[in-house]
Amino acid sequence: MGGLLTLGEAMVTFTPEQIGSLRHVRSLTASMAGSEATVAIAVRRLGHPATWVSRLGDDEPGELVLDRMRAEDLTLYVRRGPGPTGLMLKESPRAGARRAHYYRSGSAAASLRPDDLPPGLVESAAVLHVSGITMALGESPRHTVRSAVDRARAAGAMVSFDVNHRRRLWSATDARAHVTELLPHVDIAFASVSEARLLLDGATINVHDLADALRELGPGAVVVTDGPAGAVVADDHGTVHIPALAATEIDPFGAGDAFVGGSIAGLLDGMKLADAAALGSAVAAQAVAAPGDWEGLPTRGELAAARESDIDR
Amino acid sequence: MGGLLTLGEAMVTFTPEQIGSLRHVRSLTASMAGSEATVAIAVRRLGHPATWVSRLGDDEPGELVLDRMRAEDLTLYVRRGPGPTGLMLKESPRAGARRAHYYRSGSAAASLRPDDLPPGLVESAAVLHVSGITMALGESPRHTVRSAVDRARAAGAMVSFDVNHRRRLWSATDARAHVTELLPHVDIAFASVSEARLLLDGATINVHDLADALRELGPGAVVVTDGPAGAVVADDHGTVHIPALAATEIDPFGAGDAFVGGSIAGLLDGMKLADAAALGSAVAAQAVAAPGDWEGLPTRGELAAARESDIDR
Amino acid sequence: MGGLLTLGEAMVTFTPEQIGSLRHVRSLTASMAGSEATVAIAVRRLGHPATWVSRLGDDEPGELVLDRMRAEDLTLYVRRGPGPTGLMLKESPRAGARRAHYYRSGSAAASLRPDDLPPGLVESAAVLHVSGITMALGESPRHTVRSAVDRARAAGAMVSFDVNHRRRLWSATDARAHVTELLPHVDIAFASVSEARLLLDGATINVHDLADALRELGPGAVVVTDGPAGAVVADDHGTVHIPALAATEIDPFGAGDAFVGGSIAGLLDGMKLADAAALGSAVAAQAVAAPGDWEGLPTRGELAAARESDIDR
Amino acid sequence: MGGLLTLGEAMVTFTPEQIGSLRHVRSLTASMAGSEATVAIAVRRLGHPATWVSRLGDDEPGELVLDRMRAEDLTLYVRRGPGPTGLMLKESPRAGARRAHYYRSGSAAASLRPDDLPPGLVESAAVLHVSGITMALGESPRHTVRSAVDRARAAGAMVSFDVNHRRRLWSATDARAHVTELLPHVDIAFASVSEARLLLDGATINVHDLADALRELGPGAVVVTDGPAGAVVADDHGTVHIPALAATEIDPFGAGDAFVGGSIAGLLDGMKLADAAALGSAVAAQAVAAPGDWEGLPTRGELAAARESDIDR
Amino acid sequence: MGGLLTLGEAMVTFTPEQIGSLRHVRSLTASMAGSEATVAIAVRRLGHPATWVSRLGDDEPGELVLDRMRAEDLTLYVRRGPGPTGLMLKESPRAGARRAHYYRSGSAAASLRPDDLPPGLVESAAVLHVSGITMALGESPRHTVRSAVDRARAAGAMVSFDVNHRRRLWSATDARAHVTELLPHVDIAFASVSEARLLLDGATINVHDLADALRELGPGAVVVTDGPAGAVVADDHGTVHIPALAATEIDPFGAGDAFVGGSIAGLLDGMKLADAAALGSAVAAQAVAAPGDWEGLPTRGELAAARESDIDR
Amino acid sequence: MGGLLTLGEAMVTFTPEQIGSLRHVRSLTASMAGSEATVAIAVRRLGHPATWVSRLGDDEPGELVLDRMRAEDLTLYVRRGPGPTGLMLKESPRAGARRAHYYRSGSAAASLRPDDLPPGLVESAAVLHVSGITMALGESPRHTVRSAVDRARAAGAMVSFDVNHRRRLWSATDARAHVTELLPHVDIAFASVSEARLLLDGATINVHDLADALRELGPGAVVVTDGPAGAVVADDHGTVHIPALAATEIDPFGAGDAFVGGSIAGLLDGMKLADAAALGSAVAAQAVAAPGDWEGLPTRGELAAARESDIDR
Ligand SMILES: Nc1ncnc2c1ncn2[C@@H]1O[C@H](COP(=O)(O)OP(=O)(O)O)[C@@H](O)[C@H]1O
Ligand SMILES: Nc1ncnc2c1ncn2[C@@H]1O[C@H](COP(=O)(O)OP(=O)(O)O)[C@@H](O)[C@H]1O
Ligand SMILES: Nc1ncnc2c1ncn2[C@@H]1O[C@H](COP(=O)(O)OP(=O)(O)O)[C@@H](O)[C@H]1O
Ligand SMILES: Nc1ncnc2c1ncn2[C@@H]1O[C@H](COP(=O)(O)OP(=O)(O)O)[C@@H](O)[C@H]1O
Ligand SMILES: Nc1ncnc2c1ncn2[C@@H]1O[C@H](COP(=O)(O)OP(=O)(O)O)[C@@H](O)[C@H]1O
Ligand SMILES: Nc1ncnc2c1ncn2[C@@H]1O[C@H](COP(=O)(O)OP(=O)(O)O)[C@@H](O)[C@H]1O
Repeated sequence: MGGLLTLGEAMVTFTPEQIGSLRHVRSLTASMAGSEATVAIAVRRLGHPATWVSRLGDDEPGELVLDRMRAEDLTLYVRRGPGPTGLMLKESPRAGARRAHYYRSGSAAASLRPDDLPPGLVESAAVLHVSGITMALGESPRHTVRSAVDRARAAGAMVSFDVNHRRRLWSATDARAHVTELLPHVDIAFASVSEARLLLDGATINVHDLADALRELGPGAVVVTDGPAGAVVADDHGTVHIPALAATEIDPFGAGDAFVGGSIAGLLDGMKLADAAALGSAVAAQAVAAPGDWEGLPTRGELAAARESDIDR
Repeated sequence: MGGLLTLGEAMVTFTPEQIGSLRHVRSLTASMAGSEATVAIAVRRLGHPATWVSRLGDDEPGELVLDRMRAEDLTLYVRRGPGPTGLMLKESPRAGARRAHYYRSGSAAASLRPDDLPPGLVESAAVLHVSGITMALGESPRHTVRSAVDRARAAGAMVSFDVNHRRRLWSATDARAHVTELLPHVDIAFASVSEARLLLDGATINVHDLADALRELGPGAVVVTDGPAGAVVADDHGTVHIPALAATEIDPFGAGDAFVGGSIAGLLDGMKLADAAALGSAVAAQAVAAPGDWEGLPTRGELAAARESDIDR
Repeated sequence: MGGLLTLGEAMVTFTPEQIGSLRHVRSLTASMAGSEATVAIAVRRLGHPATWVSRLGDDEPGELVLDRMRAEDLTLYVRRGPGPTGLMLKESPRAGARRAHYYRSGSAAASLRPDDLPPGLVESAAVLHVSGITMALGESPRHTVRSAVDRARAAGAMVSFDVNHRRRLWSATDARAHVTELLPHVDIAFASVSEARLLLDGATINVHDLADALRELGPGAVVVTDGPAGAVVADDHGTVHIPALAATEIDPFGAGDAFVGGSIAGLLDGMKLADAAALGSAVAAQAVAAPGDWEGLPTRGELAAARESDIDR
Repeated sequence: MGGLLTLGEAMVTFTPEQIGSLRHVRSLTASMAGSEATVAIAVRRLGHPATWVSRLGDDEPGELVLDRMRAEDLTLYVRRGPGPTGLMLKESPRAGARRAHYYRSGSAAASLRPDDLPPGLVESAAVLHVSGITMALGESPRHTVRSAVDRARAAGAMVSFDVNHRRRLWSATDARAHVTELLPHVDIAFASVSEARLLLDGATINVHDLADALRELGPGAVVVTDGPAGAVVADDHGTVHIPALAATEIDPFGAGDAFVGGSIAGLLDGMKLADAAALGSAVAAQAVAAPGDWEGLPTRGELAAARESDIDR
Repeated sequence: MGGLLTLGEAMVTFTPEQIGSLRHVRSLTASMAGSEATVAIAVRRLGHPATWVSRLGDDEPGELVLDRMRAEDLTLYVRRGPGPTGLMLKESPRAGARRAHYYRSGSAAASLRPDDLPPGLVESAAVLHVSGITMALGESPRHTVRSAVDRARAAGAMVSFDVNHRRRLWSATDARAHVTELLPHVDIAFASVSEARLLLDGATINVHDLADALRELGPGAVVVTDGPAGAVVADDHGTVHIPALAATEIDPFGAGDAFVGGSIAGLLDGMKLADAAALGSAVAAQAVAAPGDWEGLPTRGELAAARESDIDR
Repeated sequence: MGGLLTLGEAMVTFTPEQIGSLRHVRSLTASMAGSEATVAIAVRRLGHPATWVSRLGDDEPGELVLDRMRAEDLTLYVRRGPGPTGLMLKESPRAGARRAHYYRSGSAAASLRPDDLPPGLVESAAVLHVSGITMALGESPRHTVRSAVDRARAAGAMVSFDVNHRRRLWSATDARAHVTELLPHVDIAFASVSEARLLLDGATINVHDLADALRELGPGAVVVTDGPAGAVVADDHGTVHIPALAATEIDPFGAGDAFVGGSIAGLLDGMKLADAAALGSAVAAQAVAAPGDWEGLPTRGELAAARESDIDR
């Protein structure tokens, strides 16, 4: 198989079409979101095979998620239930501010378990990607992450991990304990600046130092992302800054996932991590310039076109 | 105080603006819904005082519910949390079909408890209205219903009860046990035909017989509603049919609550139950002719206008 | 010139896109409306020249009205100001119910005066059409109507008049007095059943009798319309019923104007009044089957197509 | 493989969200449509494998079509270009009237050719379905249809054919000649009443007689559909009427395709044609009750649910 | 009671959802607006009691206004009629440009009169806020303002006044005369730079000098606002600049009212005017970053949150 | 007559209401576009007569185009067919990126021919404006352009030409050959920087040099536009830079046409070219600040208002 294997929850999302608190908006759009799903779509749009493992409720929100995932040409291993599909409500109460409300406790994905990944699946992937969100969903999902990581390592696949802290899902203390325990087992760890700080429990230090400090927790390499300020990559080749590309930010949700997905695609292309992260940066710049977590993810052709004239007619 | 006192959950709702399964709709509208809240609004729009007791999450969905309830000029006793505001997703996959998805397990209203009704509140109401939905939310809400009913009886207030069976909240067996236990303590019980059958656990018998049979379970009076076919009232004055009024059905959700609200307003006006139910029928006919559970509930002026020309210019 | 000449007010309109009282609707559409403007568009779409005389505010609502009128290929004599363009808010609080709110007091059209119709204009028209709405706008518009009627009679043009009673603009007493005074000077008077009753101040009599009774007030011929029940024509050829055509009523506003416009087009074609009214009936049936007062008015081609298959592909 | 194999064009569609001529509508929705694609989706939603062969432009409209087709879990054999993806504009100028405008001349699908169906593909299908639309697209698509039919016959697969006359694509004379030539090679021919008349070039005869007369042109069996009046099946078991099911018609486009798809699914289930057509009728009744050609196509679960209560909560 | 008392007109508003002149927009939203109503909502959301006195038409636009005001938990003293509720049409013909059209002549609020404020109401307020808009509505509203100011002064309440010049309501000459006459009776006068210039009838002088010059007209203190450039406060403590906060301006309508409301809340908190104005500046920065005059007004919690991360999940 | 005469194709356009690739947008708007039509509207809104010659399909898209053109008060010479009205699909896959898809091959305008301009029409115009788009539509439209240019020159009218290269309509080689051949016959040639480079087939040289080099190809004067960087005018008075005005760019389509239209209006006012181009620059700055190619084109009043305060109330 090769390509990417990832697992995690995807939810139906409701996003207001106007700025303003929910009370004052007139209409919303339904779509789907899920950090690992976004990574899988990013990788697939860039031409590599991508497989997604999950659980969804046996309900229409679950059908919506499946519809979008199939449309993106992913290979899917999805069991249904127990419990409903998770739900996420996004708000932008004011220009520049964003709020997420989760209705996912007791969702099907909270029942993810190691045997949801059939024998041979992890073993045949080139890259396994997992995130802290799945670890925060409960003990069984956390064991599933750990089991997948162990199987990937055993099979020689590269393991990618995104800290992706969600304060509404677990406490900082729990997150720190479990993530720290996992880090020595991953090849590349992605974290935002605030997540790096949370893990290191430290005062404000600069991004380069954060990346280096994180790396001491055990992962083979570290990428610390810093929004429009770009990212820092720390690996055996050194610690380098990857600039962000100019973009009109329409929807910042999913920027990190786009970055991760672009980076993994680069690695699957055979690039070194710093070059792969530069591809991730280009992918994220296009992704934030369109609404939705994953809808704006570019193909190779769109990445190339971005460098040309802005009206194509 | 006089007027109506009621208690129960209200949720934020998302309703597609187009027919079709969620996957295929383009936009949704946010509003709020809750059976007892609809009853309270119906009564208030008809000119009587109405008080609503509940719990809501300390979140924007809770603010949305409060916003709508305040706008309707209700007296509110609302505690916030623990847990989020419940959420309901409505779908009309095809013309004429409706589906509801609930995200309310663990919501704030599941923590309703007897002392959420401050001393003197039940005691000063003319009518207390409760429903089977609240009883299905958990043991504490069920005790709250029972406690309110007992206090109302002790204070001489009339007790109105709507069976309102929700199969997604509890089993038919549980519903039957708990509702049957409550019925002897209520003055008027409202049930739809299918709910009456569920309680009586019996074969298909006609509406008149259902009403009479239900009455034998102990309530002072019974109203069995039958959608566009109208309703049957059984009390000490006999068993009579109340016809439905002609209406273009835009949204059937909330018809029963509108009927109950109109009936309670009639009782507060001093009508006999059969006359009150006729008012309930008129109220429901207008309510189903506009979108939303409660938005189309009429004022006295609108009830009168319905009898005149259809273009007012 | 030949063709139709008409005069009257047109307003910008705001129409909710959803059923429900204004409080509860999410969005509205702006368009324009005006009884005589609708008649002019109906006649023009059916291939005859049509001229419209009016006053509009020197403001964007006035520009909107002009934009739509020019797009319909009318000949326009429009002075601007004094005062703003009138405004009309339409509501459908419930399926089947309609309400209009006017913001037109002090609008530019209230200053319409006889010399707004330049010399020779009335004199060269084949048909002049006026309505009771303009008479209700104030003394100056009423004199303008009377002056135009007198000039048309003097020049030998046919005079068409639609009672079009608007209770929000003047009292029934005033309407009766002024309309009755005008009727002997018109060739064809159009009235709905309720308007006929208002003028005759009588008890409920049937449509045939209403038409005959109205005719005794002096007009050359009378047409009484009765919504989906059709119309009755009374002239020297006798009193005949004109059936309405089957239609799905989407928007009843403008039905009467469509009927009048179709009838006038028939007269301009050279038909007898009863045949012309049958054309009016066909035009109205298509007009009510689309949103807006005038948007659904058919061309000759569309009238013909209506008789064929309902999917054209 | 088994299951259904079909081939044909799919286009991007623009459908106004309001009734009215294009000039007057405010917004449109983009989706996709294609007769054979709808048949394939119908079959797939009912649980059988379905394969679709086509050509699409190498453009965003082509991506939209692919996105929807992949989401429906079809097996796809799609070449890109030459030429753009076809486009269809739907209008409902008045309630009950529908118009289609095609922008498909020179589209990629006009270049469909026999080798677009790889060796073995036709040979492994249980049912091949083709339609007159593809035959009308040009000589190369017509040869492709014929080649597929011949291969299917040779391999022992059942051949289904829908006349699907499109007057904007070819003349009645051409249609009659080419379709008549094909009919002896098909196992089941579907035609609407007007198509049957067009082929038989005859006066108005009743549906039973039309079905019998059509059968004399050579197909193994014939189904003549008649909108809300149902259909007639003529085969070796005799000629029987299949009633339509009650439905609120929201969008009649695609009714025939839904009927065909349901019938093919029934055949794949092992039913006799008359029973399969009854399944087709049930499928079509649900399909017309939602917007879009294919969006409302039911699953087995939805077919079953339609028989239950209309609010599921 | 304490808290704020204010009086003035509120209108129903229609706001296009797209940029462009009214002719070209596709949809509008209905809401309500009114300068003093916005001030009252600002104060209430910040936790202080707020009372609003007004007149509204006895019509659905009036119901809409009441609905929103009740939802905001204000104490209301509202008489209905004579005349309709005022109406305001907002346009943004181009990005950055805004136009307001008023339909408020003869509205109910033009009949505001001193006894609309019941005995004791003014007397129990901590702050009375009035504006030049109400003075421009006619003689009776102007007397009402003056009467309220006199009663407040007599009772020892603080009087706040916003010049709020509306050129479409009265002439600069009239405004100057009446406002100048009132200024010595107010404790704090708010004016924008252009309003200050209009009152001083002078050449372009800088904001500090404008504030000082205005103060010489008699008010206890003066605040001159200057849009995104901030404001200047002149009182017995001196003349200081209050910076504006960074904000993405979505809707500039209501910025001044938000500023005034925040300032009054600060005064009710017990702050000095300069500190109160800084709170006003923070409130205005959030208010302009959401659509609507008042919808984006923040709570204390939202003011605090604005200082944190921009995605809360 | 005087004023402007122009000829060219106009198409119906579909423009998504959201950013994102077509697959992901929820709704589109229909309007019309055409480079020369935009120029004509620009000139007419600025007060000069403007005549537009074209061919449109005899279909609803053609009616839509005519509706908009009549609304803009143009003088129209439009024949219908053969073939349909052209269609254009606009996309903004990401903020800042624009894509156009044409469905215009075989459209009615491809049959434009010299006698579509009746005798005397060209001869009575003050300015004739043509563009490279019409030349790219086919041989007959190209001859029509040439014929019009020759007739205008013969009659002493000024000839304006806009290169307007469309790579989807013809090759750079063809464009260069035909345009170069025409240039000596035009009085003013407008080109964007990239079009100038395409014609000169040269390396990147600066805008001044491009203008001068273009002029050597034969036109009386040259204007090279450079988006937000402004334009350069080269004529007998020298070569000068015309700055762009500050504007929030909402829709860049049509900027060049607005510039040309404003310039022609200036010439018709009697200005020198450089002053006329400054008017063009002001017109373009307003046009790009509203959605649509032509909807935001300003009147003289709006040009003046832009210099004043940004809220007019
Ligand atoms: N506004 C932006 N413009 C361009 N690139 C951006 C922007 N925001 C994020 N990115 C890119 O996405 C990467 C991840 O963004 P970040 O905000 O750190 O992630 P997260 O979504 O996990 O919070 C950044 O390193 C940067 O390369
Ligand atoms: N389509 C309708 N037209 C008119 N009245 C209706 C309609 N549907 C319901 N009603 C009225 O509402 C009452 C309650 O409706 P029902 O459907 O029985 O309640 P529920 O909402 O509890 O299922 C009916 O008895 C009838 O009076
Ligand atoms: N629903 C309808 N279906 C078909 N024709 C109608 C319908 N409503 C009105 N019409 C036609 O329009 C004519 C005028 O309608 P009416 O309602 O009487 O006028 P008005 O708009 O003046 O109230 C009727 O005589 C009838 O021919
Ligand atoms: N309004 C409807 N209600 C229920 N079933 C319908 C309806 N319209 C079509 N059908 C079903 O779909 C079948 C095909 O419809 P028809 O209109 O004949 O096909 P086509 O789409 O090819 O014109 C009919 O035989 C009937 O079973
Ligand atoms: N774009 C903006 N960004 C931040 N603050 C603003 C902005 N516009 C206005 N404000 C704040 O609102 C206050 C009042 O704004 P101003 O435009 O002067 O009032 P008005 O609405 O009365 O014209 C300013 O002093 C400033 O503090
Ligand atoms: N964003 C903008 N702001 C202000 N003016 C602009 C802007 N874009 C274009 N213009 C004006 O429009 C003119 C033509 O724009 P350009 O983009 O060169 O044309 P085209 O539409 O032909 O590509 C420019 O010279 C400039 O004056």
